[in-house]
Amino acid sequence: MLFHVRMDVRIPHDMDPGVRADIVAREKVYAADLQRAGKWPHLWRIVGEYSNISIFDVDSTDELHALISGLPLFSFMDIKVTPLATHPSDINV
Amino acid sequence: MLFHVRMDVRIPHDMDPGVRADIVAREKVYAADLQRAGKWPHLWRIVGEYSNISIFDVDSTDELHALISGLPLFSFMDIKVTPLATHPSDINV
Amino acid sequence: MLFHVRMDVRIPHDMDPGVRADIVAREKVYAADLQRAGKWPHLWRIVGEYSNISIFDVDSTDELHALISGLPLFSFMDIKVTPLATHPSDINV
Amino acid sequence: MLFHVRMDVRIPHDMDPGVRADIVAREKVYAADLQRAGKWPHLWRIVGEYSNISIFDVDSTDELHALISGLPLFSFMDIKVTPLATHPSDINV
Amino acid sequence: MLFHVRMDVRIPHDMDPGVRADIVAREKVYAADLQRAGKWPHLWRIVGEYSNISIFDVDSTDELHALISGLPLFSFMDIKVTPLATHPSDINV
Amino acid sequence: MLFHVRMDVRIPHDMDPGVRADIVAREKVYAADLQRAGKWPHLWRIVGEYSNISIFDVDSTDELHALISGLPLFSFMDIKVTPLATHPSDINV
Amino acid sequence: MLFHVRMDVRIPHDMDPGVRADIVAREKVYAADLQRAGKWPHLWRIVGEYSNISIFDVDSTDELHALISGLPLFSFMDIKVTPLATHPSDINV
Amino acid sequence: MLFHVRMDVRIPHDMDPGVRADIVAREKVYAADLQRAGKWPHLWRIVGEYSNISIFDVDSTDELHALISGLPLFSFMDIKVTPLATHPSDINV
Amino acid sequence: MLFHVRMDVRIPHDMDPGVRADIVAREKVYAADLQRAGKWPHLWRIVGEYSNISIFDVDSTDELHALISGLPLFSFMDIKVTPLATHPSDINV
Amino acid sequence: MLFHVRMDVRIPHDMDPGVRADIVAREKVYAADLQRAGKWPHLWRIVGEYSNISIFDVDSTDELHALISGLPLFSFMDIKVTPLATHPSDINV
Repeated sequence: MLFHVRMDVRIPHDMDPGVRADIVAREKVYAADLQRAGKWPHLWRIVGEYSNISIFDVDSTDELHALISGLPLFSFMDIKVTPLATHPSDINV
Repeated sequence: MLFHVRMDVRIPHDMDPGVRADIVAREKVYAADLQRAGKWPHLWRIVGEYSNISIFDVDSTDELHALISGLPLFSFMDIKVTPLATHPSDINV
Repeated sequence: MLFHVRMDVRIPHDMDPGVRADIVAREKVYAADLQRAGKWPHLWRIVGEYSNISIFDVDSTDELHALISGLPLFSFMDIKVTPLATHPSDINV
Repeated sequence: MLFHVRMDVRIPHDMDPGVRADIVAREKVYAADLQRAGKWPHLWRIVGEYSNISIFDVDSTDELHALISGLPLFSFMDIKVTPLATHPSDINV
Repeated sequence: MLFHVRMDVRIPHDMDPGVRADIVAREKVYAADLQRAGKWPHLWRIVGEYSNISIFDVDSTDELHALISGLPLFSFMDIKVTPLATHPSDINV
Repeated sequence: MLFHVRMDVRIPHDMDPGVRADIVAREKVYAADLQRAGKWPHLWRIVGEYSNISIFDVDSTDELHALISGLPLFSFMDIKVTPLATHPSDINV
Repeated sequence: MLFHVRMDVRIPHDMDPGVRADIVAREKVYAADLQRAGKWPHLWRIVGEYSNISIFDVDSTDELHALISGLPLFSFMDIKVTPLATHPSDINV
Repeated sequence: MLFHVRMDVRIPHDMDPGVRADIVAREKVYAADLQRAGKWPHLWRIVGEYSNISIFDVDSTDELHALISGLPLFSFMDIKVTPLATHPSDINV
Repeated sequence: MLFHVRMDVRIPHDMDPGVRADIVAREKVYAADLQRAGKWPHLWRIVGEYSNISIFDVDSTDELHALISGLPLFSFMDIKVTPLATHPSDINV
Repeated sequence: MLFHVRMDVRIPHDMDPGVRADIVAREKVYAADLQRAGKWPHLWRIVGEYSNISIFDVDSTDELHALISGLPLFSFMDIKVTPLATHPSDINV
């Protein structure tokens, strides 16, 4: 079951650089793990913004919230989730 | 080169049913052709809305505009294009 | 799995009264059937508006889109779906 | 008498962690008390956001404001209240 | 129990003048009846707009929706209801 | 001459509690004085928000700005003024 | 007492050209009369839009609403009124 | 003196096809004339929309409004003008 | 050539009072100079807000930007410029 | 391939003046380099705002994101990218 997720990163300018680097590094590992597990099949950068558009593939809304709220950057992002369904014109369905 | 496209269909309520059916049928064929050609790799329905979120893969912005403006439903949709770039945390890159 | 759905009804003023009455009557039957089936556990009117706030309980996003797009009034409503998860402070969980 | 309440939590990033933990813990107790008293019959997490959608059941608008403004997190939330009425298609009415 | 109601009138330009005059006349009578009954204690015109700001005094949200949806102009207005509570600095309380 | 005023209080979280208490206390006295003088005939709390909706009765826009900008909380509020006129359906006119 | 008024003209495309010409001609006369009477001291076109920004000088909000609602184009405009006060840095005051 | 202009075309769906073709053809000629005269130095299509972003080079705001309001499609476009100034980092200045 | 300018002052609450008083005093002098020079013919306070609506009379957009960006409060204001043209119903033209 | 980019600069008021001056100086050099390389053919100031409207000419969206995210002010700007295509009425095409 697919969900479209837009994440806009808003890290405070006065965050300690070491703390920031650590969070960003952990975010990268976390994202890689979810991609390998098949939970985060698509991840794109929005051109010109510190933002991404992602597609998540999960079994339930509870699972999706657990995955997103576990992101190391979760407290520093504006996040908007849009549920997706199969499109009748999708030739792969 | 990928672009994120959201399309919201707004067909007037008083459109002739035969005309409408014809446009929708041609839209389906057109979308299938572009998918087979690899130009429209993802197409999802937004749950609860007569809208879709799509990913287009094109060589130029001119090509993208030509593809979108050629949609049989083009005059009856609100469309918003967002350019995408490779995300540094994408494990497939 | 719960989803929050807001529906704003926008029936054109020039719709034939008989057609309108028929659609509204079928909408009522459809809503009753989904409630009895346990798919539409909550349905409230927003005070002062021809709108409702609903909670749907479904197994998938595809099922949810099928239920909503099957509403007789579907073409005459603005609809917005918000996915819900269990809240950690909910004492019933 | 039911009211729909959306709460978006906005805790400042520089709040003392101990203070924050204390407020969040008191919020949880407060929410549980109101649920047990039948005043807060529904409480859901919005997927991907530090937000909830709630249904309150109160005797008056004064009571509702007293309950909401008594929330330990009240100063750190954007809150929007929408009054609800019985829907004519609700089969339980 | 007080509610703040904003009503913006949107009568279609092509409505039959006789039908329009009849609806507006019935609206005036209806509004006068509710004022005399104490249900609609304040009614003001917003300067420069075909809109009003009103205060309703009702016993329940169901009563409020019944009163508003009974307005002859109901189908031709955008309406927004905001629940009010006693203000602690109000010297009359 | 009546004006509708909405005030949303935005006191910074890091304001000194003593300074804050002093400003809020002076605001209460100021509001009471204006109510007694007949300049601020209505004052309501918006349910669930640290906001009010007020009706001011003044002789001029200059007087209104002087009254509002004299509020001890003026620097800590978002304020929106809407001019009101007599409504033709008001039975008291 | 000055008020800032923005008017956006929205004449339906299918209005009879003769009716339209008549309304626009009467609007011009009406505007000239109010300017000569000193009630409408400033009137500017917003570049690129069928809109104007105006300053009205009136004795009361009731007078202002009467003047604006008497505009022949009143039913075909979106209008927004903003009350003005003397600015402390205005050297003419 | 440069101005940034965004134009969104909104031709009614029920316009007579011959009338529409005539207006669009005249628009093209008009745009070509202004480009040759150096008044409209840049004209781009927004990808996926029936819209353009243009740069106009004029001697006054009156001239700009005359040019824009003379567009054959003027009545069928939403237009937004933004004044531009020389940028201090522009190497051509 | 006239331009409509709205300025909303947003001075940070924690600015040093002496610094603030100095900036505001210099702003007043600067505004008086421009008024005397005929560059800033109108300046009004928006009732209830720390904002003004101004009319500037300049020879070019570069001059306008130089005048506005030279305001001592420039870094502490949200500013929106709208170009104006002569209105055909203005009796003084 | 052209892209329209709007950049709104939001430098925190409490940034160290030396740090700020350094970033702004490096931004100027960076912008000059890109202009000389033909990547940033147009750069205009929006009158009255600390903002610019730019046209970038790049070979891919990845290149565009690399150029924009390399701006020394990138972390202190709100940026919005709009893809452009050739306009059929452009006489230079």
